[in-house]
Amino acid sequence: MRYELYYWPSIQGRGELVRLALEEAGAGYVDVARKRGRGQGVEALLRVLRGSAPERAPFAPPFLRAGKLLIGQTANILQYLGPRLNLVPKAEGARLWAHQLQLTVEDFVIEIHNTHHPIAGSLYYREQKREARRRASYFTAERARQFLIYFERVLQDNPAGKGWMIGRRLSYIDLSMFQIVAGLRYAFPKMMQRLSPDIHGLSALHDKVAQRPNIAGYLSSARRLPFNEDGIFRHYPELDT
Amino acid sequence: MRYELYYWPSIQGRGELVRLALEEAGAGYVDVARKRGRGQGVEALLRVLRGSAPERAPFAPPFLRAGKLLIGQTANILQYLGPRLNLVPKAEGARLWAHQLQLTVEDFVIEIHNTHHPIAGSLYYREQKREARRRASYFTAERARQFLIYFERVLQDNPAGKGWMIGRRLSYIDLSMFQIVAGLRYAFPKMMQRLSPDIHGLSALHDKVAQRPNIAGYLSSARRLPFNEDGIFRHYPELDT
Repeated sequence: MRYELYYWPSIQGRGELVRLALEEAGAGYVDVARKRGRGQGVEALLRVLRGSAPERAPFAPPFLRAGKLLIGQTANILQYLGPRLNLVPKAEGARLWAHQLQLTVEDFVIEIHNTHHPIAGSLYYREQKREARRRASYFTAERARQFLIYFERVLQDNPAGKGWMIGRRLSYIDLSMFQIVAGLRYAFPKMMQRLSPDIHGLSALHDKVAQRPNIAGYLSSARRLPFNEDGIFRHYPELDT
Repeated sequence: MRYELYYWPSIQGRGELVRLALEEAGAGYVDVARKRGRGQGVEALLRVLRGSAPERAPFAPPFLRAGKLLIGQTANILQYLGPRLNLVPKAEGARLWAHQLQLTVEDFVIEIHNTHHPIAGSLYYREQKREARRRASYFTAERARQFLIYFERVLQDNPAGKGWMIGRRLSYIDLSMFQIVAGLRYAFPKMMQRLSPDIHGLSALHDKVAQRPNIAGYLSSARRLPFNEDGIFRHYPELDT
């Protein structure tokens, strides 16, 4: 199966959570909007978004084409890919748990994004800077901590106990936790420094994921876009107090 | 199977999307935090949230106990219940599509909530009223429309074409759309009046769902909590401009 991933070409964004899964598994995929051939590029992405019956148009990227299926919503894509890429345990309970954690990651991602966009996605950051400062002050003082401590506890409480979020092996939720830690270190270095004594497990997980051969290869390739101030994780020093 | 639903006892909130599914299907369930017996009430909910290994503690309500499984995240719960309550088509593609739409509903719900809580969930509305006015002005002018027009198009483009969101019969996504329309009519009546010419299908879907015998019975029972100013859909006239 050769997958087609559709996501904005200049940011990591939510698409990165899917890229990490495909890369770790060594799956064949095309990052459609970043290619320039016929039927590729951002135009191809926009064509699907505009949609036409009976195609099931998604509300927003990322979405994945897998044979005849067109699958939208990051967590839905990962849930679909999990068993196929061997990135989730087999038992029903474990799969529900993995998806539940991924949905909690998605909630966290929205809150991270809202630190720089508290008023409207259609405005620039500079047009909502005042509100962003206020929102970010609650995020860095309390909310980020709630999420991170929760995930740390999940990691520590994993009864299989091998330093992974669920079960005895890496699953897609570990890849998402890697991205969360990497992104928050980029966007909120002071906050992460302050929280580091309480998230030893997540920090170790981040490093372990970064050293996986396929992930290490990916991170040092041109396929990994750098963090920047157009994505979810943005480094605005005035928000990291 | 007797399900146990855990959700805050005084608001519809996200829990309502699960309640509607259980009620439509006539499933046996206990709304645990609203009961007063031993092992019930809000204390029972908080006990699960605080968790203890190897229990898989959710980050937030709602969550559902189904036999030995404890399932968190609204969309995850509905995905689990769908096939068991006969509230989703059988084909894999249709189930992925239903879940994708439900996740888009969840995104919408977060944005609706953020109209009155743009800064922090830990603050009262009155403490973020200024920012709420600004956020709500973008929500009512553009963002709500984007979501509603998208869902209207999904409804109109359903190739089975019987006035349901997917397939030929009611599915859990129809119940969620009912709740979205009902909630927005309560919270933003002026906006909904203005948008009504463009969402005929959704309005008809709302009415059709409200008339289902089990739903009609539920809506007129004491089990259906009224909308209020503690939940997701709050009527603050100053935000509905």
